[in-house]
Amino acid sequence: VIAIDRAVRFEEVDAAGIVFFAHFYAYCHEAMERLFDGVPGGYVGLITKRKIGFPAVHTEADFKAPLRYGDTARIEAGIAKLGETSCNMRYRVVRARDAVLAATIEHVTVASDLVQMTKLRLPDDVRAALAPHLLA
Amino acid sequence: VIAIDRAVRFEEVDAAGIVFFAHFYAYCHEAMERLFDGVPGGYVGLITKRKIGFPAVHTEADFKAPLRYGDTARIEAGIAKLGETSCNMRYRVVRARDAVLAATIEHVTVASDLVQMTKLRLPDDVRAALAPHLLA
Amino acid sequence: VIAIDRAVRFEEVDAAGIVFFAHFYAYCHEAMERLFDGVPGGYVGLITKRKIGFPAVHTEADFKAPLRYGDTARIEAGIAKLGETSCNMRYRVVRARDAVLAATIEHVTVASDLVQMTKLRLPDDVRAALAPHLLA
Amino acid sequence: VIAIDRAVRFEEVDAAGIVFFAHFYAYCHEAMERLFDGVPGGYVGLITKRKIGFPAVHTEADFKAPLRYGDTARIEAGIAKLGETSCNMRYRVVRARDAVLAATIEHVTVASDLVQMTKLRLPDDVRAALAPHLLA
Repeated sequence: VIAIDRAVRFEEVDAAGIVFFAHFYAYCHEAMERLFDGVPGGYVGLITKRKIGFPAVHTEADFKAPLRYGDTARIEAGIAKLGETSCNMRYRVVRARDAVLAATIEHVTVASDLVQMTKLRLPDDVRAALAPHLLA
Repeated sequence: VIAIDRAVRFEEVDAAGIVFFAHFYAYCHEAMERLFDGVPGGYVGLITKRKIGFPAVHTEADFKAPLRYGDTARIEAGIAKLGETSCNMRYRVVRARDAVLAATIEHVTVASDLVQMTKLRLPDDVRAALAPHLLA
Repeated sequence: VIAIDRAVRFEEVDAAGIVFFAHFYAYCHEAMERLFDGVPGGYVGLITKRKIGFPAVHTEADFKAPLRYGDTARIEAGIAKLGETSCNMRYRVVRARDAVLAATIEHVTVASDLVQMTKLRLPDDVRAALAPHLLA
Repeated sequence: VIAIDRAVRFEEVDAAGIVFFAHFYAYCHEAMERLFDGVPGGYVGLITKRKIGFPAVHTEADFKAPLRYGDTARIEAGIAKLGETSCNMRYRVVRARDAVLAATIEHVTVASDLVQMTKLRLPDDVRAALAPHLLA
């Protein structure tokens, strides 16, 4: 499991004064990219050099508490399951100042050839880099 | 059920060249706001005058096909269930050029007092405005 | 000169409750793309098929009045100057409900080969499509 | 002068494959907020507690080199001028990997009462906190 701290940005709130719910997925994506740090070149290298990506095929989220400007989100990311072609990420988003759980998110991705937009068997080096992040 | 057509914007794609998945929730929110058009002042009036909002408490999404710059998303929105305080929206996002289903999204919201951030019984006029959008 | 109406979106305000100033440039870009409608395939075709884009090299903006959720921006776009490789766009952003001027923006772009990221002489068909939008 | 390092996010590129120019202003705003760190509660406290903000009234930007996914922007921020009610920020955005200048931005803001949306004399504590960031 990895964790990143991410301050809510000035422009990420909505007209209701709280972080727009769609941004939670972007926060989690930032954490997800860190899970690939063990791959040479990281997630950036996969996307830009090898043209391999992990588009979402399914998500489920529960929102428990709002975040506001001035808050910092702590995003914990791990891997719930590694399939033949798929990788299920799991996140907890915690409000750093009081450790209140703000959201839990499941995020099923599929390794994909970005040129053909077809699914791929998880490359061995990617599988090896992700495996240490498997949740118990 | 209502439907809106929404062109993918130049800046909504990601480094993989497809619409970033988090934006699908924003597309659906645009359609959701239209479901409130029968309330005087619409969703804008609820938010800015009555300080009533519908934050997400749960979402589930399946992503079936990517959208790219140049595509138009057709977002169909309806209401799957009206509870005492909750409203479950359901969306289909269709790629307009070929009618391919791009995503289906469930979006459970709770009527909330935005000042106290407490849940509210659905106001009668809001319930009346939403009821015609109930899916069979 | 062309004009588009663009409702402020729920998530485009910032923690100060007004449209985040950076979004004004995105609003103008939406209008800018319409200026290329006379090119076969439009701006989309230039970007995705011909790999020709118009990145900004200079901007100047004056912000006169805020926009809020519930407002609609009317964006008027025209061309102030067509150079050998450059195209200077000019925009007025008007708050539709009361015709108050919200912003004026100058936006100098350079025709660019997106693969090499080098500047290009404006293609003849593009120049011909843009010329009718030249401001007096 | 302060400086922050800010990785380009996966979703911040546009259909031309480079960071959408509007995001440069958001990057600079992130750096700008740090200039207020000497005010008790920082920029967050000004906005959320004292209802004082610094909306943009004028910007000028020169874009020199693109940023891409995988790049980190180094944003240097300082103050070019402190007026009675205004504060002129100046930024340099540098591509961290090769120290190439990506953009320079001028950003004139006016201290504003966010409730009345009227301009304010710069509060003394804010002026004192900003003064050390004045550029020579």
